[in-house]
Amino acid sequence: MAFQNHDASTIVTDHTRPITIVQNGASFVPTFPDCYVNIDEEFPGEAHVYKQEKVIFQGKSQYQDFFVFQSQTYGKIAILDGCLQLTEKDECSYQEMLTHLPLCSIPNPRKVLLIGGGDGGILREISRHDSVEQIDICELDEMVINVYKEFFPDIAIGYVDPRVNVHIGDGVAFIKSVPPGTYDAIIIDAFPGMGAYATELSDEDFLKSIAKALKPGGVLSAQADSVWIKNFTMEDTITRCRNIFKGSVNYAWTSVPSYPSGSIGFVLCSTNGPSVVDFKHPVNQLDPEKFGVANGPPKFYNSEIHTAAFCLPAFAKSKMGSTYA
Amino acid sequence: MAFQNHDASTIVTDHTRPITIVQNGASFVPTFPDCYVNIDEEFPGEAHVYKQEKVIFQGKSQYQDFFVFQSQTYGKIAILDGCLQLTEKDECSYQEMLTHLPLCSIPNPRKVLLIGGGDGGILREISRHDSVEQIDICELDEMVINVYKEFFPDIAIGYVDPRVNVHIGDGVAFIKSVPPGTYDAIIIDAFPGMGAYATELSDEDFLKSIAKALKPGGVLSAQADSVWIKNFTMEDTITRCRNIFKGSVNYAWTSVPSYPSGSIGFVLCSTNGPSVVDFKHPVNQLDPEKFGVANGPPKFYNSEIHTAAFCLPAFAKSKMGSTYA
Repeated sequence: MAFQNHDASTIVTDHTRPITIVQNGASFVPTFPDCYVNIDEEFPGEAHVYKQEKVIFQGKSQYQDFFVFQSQTYGKIAILDGCLQLTEKDECSYQEMLTHLPLCSIPNPRKVLLIGGGDGGILREISRHDSVEQIDICELDEMVINVYKEFFPDIAIGYVDPRVNVHIGDGVAFIKSVPPGTYDAIIIDAFPGMGAYATELSDEDFLKSIAKALKPGGVLSAQADSVWIKNFTMEDTITRCRNIFKGSVNYAWTSVPSYPSGSIGFVLCSTNGPSVVDFKHPVNQLDPEKFGVANGPPKFYNSEIHTAAFCLPAFAKSKMGSTYA
Repeated sequence: MAFQNHDASTIVTDHTRPITIVQNGASFVPTFPDCYVNIDEEFPGEAHVYKQEKVIFQGKSQYQDFFVFQSQTYGKIAILDGCLQLTEKDECSYQEMLTHLPLCSIPNPRKVLLIGGGDGGILREISRHDSVEQIDICELDEMVINVYKEFFPDIAIGYVDPRVNVHIGDGVAFIKSVPPGTYDAIIIDAFPGMGAYATELSDEDFLKSIAKALKPGGVLSAQADSVWIKNFTMEDTITRCRNIFKGSVNYAWTSVPSYPSGSIGFVLCSTNGPSVVDFKHPVNQLDPEKFGVANGPPKFYNSEIHTAAFCLPAFAKSKMGSTYA
């Protein structure tokens, strides 16, 4: 596989020295040798520890620290600024759901924008959609792209798709520059921990620029809180998104063992369009015979689990706001 | 609340001294002071660590060690022989799903048997069902019951239900002594880590004695592997259960953050009866106005999430065996 844009100068590798990453700002910081300790400020007083079988990569870009190690049962694990970004074992769940929940909810997605997601896994998933003609990605940190291309070829394979156009830069600025009504779908894969920009579901200006960049009946998907977070509520976010997008707004969740609480949420929004988008019931099934540039069919996603992702525990459903159906 | 059968002699409490429980048999054993480290042999090379805010109870029965501590965000956490049994924060998911998946799948459960489940949470959930006339529980270790009654009143409240009959003894022997066709539902809540008996879904004799103890069209629920376990497969278990129970056999899963991989599976079986049990579509809705002895409505379970629990990731669905629908 030939990768483009590889800039080896950003990569500093030390394959031999086991290290321990210690995060600050947490209420307790357990440390022990040869282990990576994942601590999330939303889940104080707990930690998820992984033994480092082998350090694969350590590097630093102008934006962040990147660390990759081989784990015992999760395959390779990628760490950005001390926060677990993905593991080879369970990236399928996050990447497939974040991609196919929006793209399978509209009939013929043609133009798709990905903000963040430099690993390429979302690109790999978008690539499964035959109707898509153009895939734009705006990633801030070129090192992320290069490291994934080097060490996670089954994820970065998304870049092989000839429909992909890579833009290196700030996603917020990129969206503001987009002509109105350009995209059928916008996917945001930017973690709060990732530095220069974040999934700002509380930033009205950012949300308005996304809504403007979407076609009528276009869709947005973005990461949202786990239902298990302390004082979980989506009421304000859903009200805000309803006011700005003026179409459907829903919350879904999925299982990702390596994320805090073992699960993660998603917010799905559609702009007002010719027909109402019903996120819970996919209208656009993946063709089981076509994988795009991926090496096989989805590992996690199917139409059943698409609908199931919108079924919430009683305690979470009550935190969606009074108008949530 | 008045509890019966309280035998304080089995309880030895030290509320002050923080301790660290170290489990053997794991591939690595990180230790640090004032933390509980949960390691599961099915997930080698990882650990889930909780800060102990306060030690609540330490004791030892003839069967096992029991340890209870106050955590920062999971409420009190109960540890049996070094294995996390439940946390106050997320016990709702496991207890409600293990109970209502079977009981809401049949029209009028009248006699229910619980094997294990000494904490009382399953009893609390069975108690929500008005149709139930008799609730038998067979728990091996009386200390478990007493400790939960003392320190987890919202869970052990299940014992308050006057329909409950407590049997202290071995669950396997108890089931073998049951007259054929006694129960509408049997629920097994016995962890492999719990010692003297385990959820022996591979033990044909045990399964046959359960099938015999059930009425025609009666149902069994038991804990099963998480879909995220290495080399996950349910094919043999499902085939074995089909051959023995001769009715419906299904696999479901739910989110439990404090369990390894953040999720757990269930096996549901029905014996051959007057009508086919369709576990995926509950025929018996919980009355929203009636809570039994519980203090309020279910926190996790609802009819939507009942059905959603049977929707599996693509990789898991392919491991159910060729005849699984």
